[in-house]
Amino acid sequence: MPNFLPDIFLKLVNEFSKLPGVGEKTAFKFALYLLKRPKEEVELLADTITKFKNDIKYCKVCNNITTEDVCSICKDPSRDPTSICVVEGVEDLIAIEKTHSFKGKYHVLHGVISPLDGIGPDDIKLKGLLDRIERGDVKEVIIATNPDIEGEGTALYIAKLLKNKGVKVTRLGYGIPVGGDLEFVDEITLSQAIEGRKKLDIEE
Amino acid sequence: MPNFLPDIFLKLVNEFSKLPGVGEKTAFKFALYLLKRPKEEVELLADTITKFKNDIKYCKVCNNITTEDVCSICKDPSRDPTSICVVEGVEDLIAIEKTHSFKGKYHVLHGVISPLDGIGPDDIKLKGLLDRIERGDVKEVIIATNPDIEGEGTALYIAKLLKNKGVKVTRLGYGIPVGGDLEFVDEITLSQAIEGRKKLDIEE
Repeated sequence: MPNFLPDIFLKLVNEFSKLPGVGEKTAFKFALYLLKRPKEEVELLADTITKFKNDIKYCKVCNNITTEDVCSICKDPSRDPTSICVVEGVEDLIAIEKTHSFKGKYHVLHGVISPLDGIGPDDIKLKGLLDRIERGDVKEVIIATNPDIEGEGTALYIAKLLKNKGVKVTRLGYGIPVGGDLEFVDEITLSQAIEGRKKLDIEE
Repeated sequence: MPNFLPDIFLKLVNEFSKLPGVGEKTAFKFALYLLKRPKEEVELLADTITKFKNDIKYCKVCNNITTEDVCSICKDPSRDPTSICVVEGVEDLIAIEKTHSFKGKYHVLHGVISPLDGIGPDDIKLKGLLDRIERGDVKEVIIATNPDIEGEGTALYIAKLLKNKGVKVTRLGYGIPVGGDLEFVDEITLSQAIEGRKKLDIEE
C-alpha cells in the first residue's frame, strides 16, 4: 500500500477490501469514487450501513430478514402455511421468490451441515423448523439446499429427522445443475425444479 | 427489486449499486455479507467512510489528497521542486508513485478538458499550476494526462499556456498504449514512459 497516502484513505481501502470479490484495486476505485461524490451522498451510504445493521434482525418464525419480530412472508395470510421451503440462506430465498413459483412459507437455515468445516446440525437454525412441524399444520417440507455435497447431506439429514413426523419431505427436482450454487440458477430452471420436486426416500 | 425484503435492505443495495462497477447482484452480495459480519466490523466500515469524507481534503499546493493543508509529497524536502508532473486524477498520481521513477512534485488537475462534455480549462484545477510556475523555481513540467483524445488535448492546451514561461514542457514518452487509461498501464511500461518523455513542440 502506498505510504504517501493519508492513513484514513488506506484504512477505507482496507475496509472495502473485506467485501466479497473486492480486491485492493477495486477498493481503491471505491474510495476514489467517494472522494468525488457530494458529502451528503457519502454520509447517506455510511448512515444506511449503520441503520441496516441496527434495524435488520431475523424473523422469529423462519429466520428470514426483517425489521420486525416476524417477517412479511410469515405474516402474509395469502401464503400457504402447510408448505415450508427450507433454504440455506436469504440469497436462496430471494432467488426462489423471484420465480413466483412458490406460495408457501420458508425456513432459512443460515448455513449448511459441513462436517469438514466443523459445522454440525446444532450450528444451523434447524431446531425452529422442528418446532414448527411439531405444532401441526405443516404438510410438506421442500428442501431447497444447494445441490452440492453439503447441501445434499443437509437435505438427507433433515429428511431423516422428519421421517415419521407426518410430513411429506421433498427435494428440488430436475433442472438444478449438480455441484452448482442455487443462487446463480436462472429463474426458469429454478421454476422447473420447484415444479418437478420429488419425494426424498430414506432407506432404513 | 423484491418487495418482500425490508426497505432498509433495499436502500442499502441501492446505495452500494452507485459504486463504480457494482450492479444490483453485487450490491446484494455486499448487503448479505454485512448481514453476517459482527456489528463492530460493520460499524467500523460506516465510521471509516464518514471519517474519510470528513478528513480528506485537497492539498493547497498540488490538489493531491491529504488530511492537512499541504500533502506529504509537497512537504517532502527530498523531492525535486523544479519538476512538476501534471496528472488528471489521484489514481494517476498513485500509478506513477508506484513506479518509483519520478522524484519531483505533482499537480493534480481533477479532470481533463473535454469540450464535448462541456468541461473547459476553467473547470479543472489548472490555475494553481500557473501560479506555481509564476513563482519561479519550476524548470520542467511533465504532462502525464491519459493518452486519449481529451488527455492529449489537455496536454496541448497546457503546453501552449506554458510556452514562453521559461519552463521545459514534456509529455510521457513511448510505452503508453494510445487510447488507453494511464491507471491501468503496468509499472514497467509507465516507468519507461517517464524515462522516454519528450519535449512538446507547439507550432506557431
